[in-house]
Amino acid sequence: MKLIVQKFGGTSVKDKDRIFNVAKIITDTYKEGNNVIAVVSAQGDTTDDLIAKAEEINPNASKREMDMLLSTGEQISASLLAMAIESMGFPVISLSGRQAGFVTDSNYSRARIKKLEPERMEKELDKRRIVIVTGFQGLNKYDDVTTLGRGGSDTSAVAIAASMHADLCQIYTDVDGVYTADPRIVPSAQKLSEISFDEMLELASCGAQVLHNRSVEMAKKYNVNLEVCSSLERVPGTKVKEVTKMEKLLIKGVAKDDDVVRIAVIGIPDRPGIAFRLFSLLATKKINVDIILQSIGRDGTKDISFTIPTDMRHTALELLNDNLDTLGAHRIEVDDDVTKVSIVGAGMQTNAGVAAKMFEALFEADINIQMISTSEIKISVLIEKANGVKAMNALSEAFID
Amino acid sequence: MKLIVQKFGGTSVKDKDRIFNVAKIITDTYKEGNNVIAVVSAQGDTTDDLIAKAEEINPNASKREMDMLLSTGEQISASLLAMAIESMGFPVISLSGRQAGFVTDSNYSRARIKKLEPERMEKELDKRRIVIVTGFQGLNKYDDVTTLGRGGSDTSAVAIAASMHADLCQIYTDVDGVYTADPRIVPSAQKLSEISFDEMLELASCGAQVLHNRSVEMAKKYNVNLEVCSSLERVPGTKVKEVTKMEKLLIKGVAKDDDVVRIAVIGIPDRPGIAFRLFSLLATKKINVDIILQSIGRDGTKDISFTIPTDMRHTALELLNDNLDTLGAHRIEVDDDVTKVSIVGAGMQTNAGVAAKMFEALFEADINIQMISTSEIKISVLIEKANGVKAMNALSEAFID
Repeated sequence: MKLIVQKFGGTSVKDKDRIFNVAKIITDTYKEGNNVIAVVSAQGDTTDDLIAKAEEINPNASKREMDMLLSTGEQISASLLAMAIESMGFPVISLSGRQAGFVTDSNYSRARIKKLEPERMEKELDKRRIVIVTGFQGLNKYDDVTTLGRGGSDTSAVAIAASMHADLCQIYTDVDGVYTADPRIVPSAQKLSEISFDEMLELASCGAQVLHNRSVEMAKKYNVNLEVCSSLERVPGTKVKEVTKMEKLLIKGVAKDDDVVRIAVIGIPDRPGIAFRLFSLLATKKINVDIILQSIGRDGTKDISFTIPTDMRHTALELLNDNLDTLGAHRIEVDDDVTKVSIVGAGMQTNAGVAAKMFEALFEADINIQMISTSEIKISVLIEKANGVKAMNALSEAFID
Repeated sequence: MKLIVQKFGGTSVKDKDRIFNVAKIITDTYKEGNNVIAVVSAQGDTTDDLIAKAEEINPNASKREMDMLLSTGEQISASLLAMAIESMGFPVISLSGRQAGFVTDSNYSRARIKKLEPERMEKELDKRRIVIVTGFQGLNKYDDVTTLGRGGSDTSAVAIAASMHADLCQIYTDVDGVYTADPRIVPSAQKLSEISFDEMLELASCGAQVLHNRSVEMAKKYNVNLEVCSSLERVPGTKVKEVTKMEKLLIKGVAKDDDVVRIAVIGIPDRPGIAFRLFSLLATKKINVDIILQSIGRDGTKDISFTIPTDMRHTALELLNDNLDTLGAHRIEVDDDVTKVSIVGAGMQTNAGVAAKMFEALFEADINIQMISTSEIKISVLIEKANGVKAMNALSEAFID
């Protein structure tokens, strides 16, 4: 008997019709003789509504209480989905993150999974029950609920698939696979039948919102058989694999990430160890830094700019301003009006002209580049937010169409 | 240092203003040097909204999944209340029923508390934290969430007070104490400064919705120092005690319970053991039967009528119709158009004229009595629903004004 893990996002369970649609996918898989574990996110806007409720009461609420609050969202969708499956006459049980055995660290609101204790899930599968698990959450050593942060439900699903050696882990979304670019932005974007873990990782960290990179990292590490598919159309999705077969496409995708803020630390003394001190400081608050740009020294000082996710803006600014003296910096500047556009593809490392072609395409679209970051399989640029869509289309035209 | 347990119902935490009002009551009590454990219900209509969501999906959802769903309501209000208290600068933590140590049986949707393991609460109090506990819920031996049924949060609060030997257990509601009748129905109703456990029990089981009888039973058993007070006005409430001082009032209260259905089992063979068989059958589904009326036998058959809470209507009818043959009954009839009106008072047992005076008052108000039930300290009658308010006023006028 095969074990199939299926993950359904918030839009896939947003109302009664969608819940029954998901229930149909799950029970069809079960009827084919498989064991099924389904991981669900909170319905539609539930999480945002709960956050709004909390902000009305206390905009600086502790993350511990936020997690207590937000974890209810998945509990509601999981129990409703179980009720739908019950009404169709199948044996089913919903389990919270705690009951499913998710043990995390105590980093509230962005906890990491330390281990999974799948005994309860195994027991329920042994009874041939369909198991519904609340994504996005676990329990720490203090016996308190934690949430896994953005993309947490993807990570929950992959963790279950990895730990229980599932035969397949399907991530159901409202698109039918991974595209070379977001088809809502770039109409000519093409669907990929498969993509490598590394390419998916770069696409995910560059803002393609199909799969969160934590889940892809974990899938790669444990070699989970991953597939991205649509909960609305029964068509083959995109398989994410260790190595993909050679394809003609040099560039696998163009991605845009608006969820980024550029911070500049101005006037730091130009001596060794300053960058180390700055980024160690940011690390203490678990602030993920992406693109880094360091200016050439001048008048004995230099500037360091870097990008961080928007939700870390407040934490980072507070931290840096509190430590202006320690860093010896003059001031902190922040720019919200930026977006990160990236091209991704395993083929580019052996092809010297890719970067030049990218910059040319942007130049011809009259787009100014503020920062550049490259890896073996991707090139990202930071540009003015208003130019994001134009840049994606220019790059798709240059590389993919 | 005193320990004070305070319970706040759904209307007391229904929105931001009410939550801060409750936070003020709690922190004022804390500032006076007391340890405080606050038990909260779900906000306003949350529970009803969740039930509506479930019924849309599956009107016959399992109680296990309903409890999974409904328990989120208190988790939301508890974390929001903790956030409000945080914003006022006090140390606070919210705990779920599981974390607070509520161990229950597995009777989903109406679980009984088996024991309370208060170690976590004690640990938090030792840190001088205000502890917010989700009422209405616990955990069973299968590690699954259960809810305690109607009045569950009152029961949670009293259980904590009993188990932790609290100095006082305050039940905050939107009225400022226990009245001789619902002041919204009987404008001339009087507030009682104190009432005995037994009188409170009769009033509660007769539909006075101030305190649920399970909580009063438990308070009586463990001699918990109980007080009913208003979350809106800072005035002395009603103390519920073992023995109250002699008061002039013979009748302590008039209560009405609309949450009642009359069921008639028609044409049962008139032989011994039938009543036993019928009520054993109802007991298997934990259906609480209140007033029972058995007709005189005629043509070798008799009829048995009884009342049950409205929420057991479906379960009872299904059960009885499935067992028509076993019971040898002709058919089952149901009447929703009834209400139960009661008078309560410890003085009545030594006063023979009370029942007669009650029936006279109803007769003069032109109200027909369908069933009668008496105990040492109360008399209940079942009447047509439309006459409920008229009956309460007639009885208040006759006995209390």
